[in-house]
Amino acid sequence: MATKSALVLLAEGAEEMELVISVDVLRRAGVSVTVAGLSGTDPVRCSRNVVVCPDTSLQDAVTKAPFDVIVLPGGLQGAKNLAASSEVGLLLQQQEKEGRLVAAICAAPTALQAHNVGIGKSLTSYPSFREQLQEKYTYKEDSVVVDGWYIFPSD
Amino acid sequence: MATKSALVLLAEGAEEMELVISVDVLRRAGVSVTVAGLSGTDPVRCSRNVVVCPDTSLQDAVTKAPFDVIVLPGGLQGAKNLAASSEVGLLLQQQEKEGRLVAAICAAPTALQAHNVGIGKSLTSYPSFREQLQEKYTYKEDSVVVDGWYIFPSD
Repeated sequence: MATKSALVLLAEGAEEMELVISVDVLRRAGVSVTVAGLSGTDPVRCSRNVVVCPDTSLQDAVTKAPFDVIVLPGGLQGAKNLAASSEVGLLLQQQEKEGRLVAAICAAPTALQAHNVGIGKSLTSYPSFREQLQEKYTYKEDSVVVDGWYIFPSD
Repeated sequence: MATKSALVLLAEGAEEMELVISVDVLRRAGVSVTVAGLSGTDPVRCSRNVVVCPDTSLQDAVTKAPFDVIVLPGGLQGAKNLAASSEVGLLLQQQEKEGRLVAAICAAPTALQAHNVGIGKSLTSYPSFREQLQEKYTYKEDSVVVDGWYIFPSD
């Protein structure tokens, strides 16, 4: 069986636990993980001031698509940066089109909403985004919601 | 009340979850945390290939001692590097002498043993170090063991 692949998006202000736990657990499970810096390969300051170096830039990473899963860590500013990136938008739209997995943690479902993907799916998020997200999604209070190709841990 | 301070030691091969969760949770709790690179300020490759930038070098950090707690993340190679560092030894011996907290996670109690600190205390660790550690410590199977100034989460 070929190794599964994951792309984890690292934006300034990402929640560092949500980033690192995702990467670590996936690598322990034998998944080939690429940590892609949204703004290149420079070190990225996360939400609690832990500074993490991406493995590569998002620009380079997308040339190696597809990935079995794209993981979006939360963090308020991190999610805003993911929402503002047209490159992330194209990547997510392509992932949806191909029926591949997307995982969006905590505040990150707001980035999915910004890029108009997964519309109508059931999801959860950090609680304060409920009102905003329930306009286009079926909001649930569960710790984790899985709907089709989408995985949403609340935090 | 003055802010509490924590020094988190970052060695090549540290377990990145044990590092980042410690830093993040302590910062969320309002503790002033310094992540000190054992070998300077260069980025440090952790056990599952997440690369983290220290805030400062250990050499610079020790000039700002004392810290209310010194945290040693685990990771097999990380713990070996902590065990091999005479600078870490002096720091831990000073911390013990002053009756300040030490937290050693997973494999990190082996570094305490190497530096001859906390001898006779009750502790836990990643299970495979039981035999080695019970020579000088009272080994327990609990998830977390607290004994005096020492905190030992098993992982």
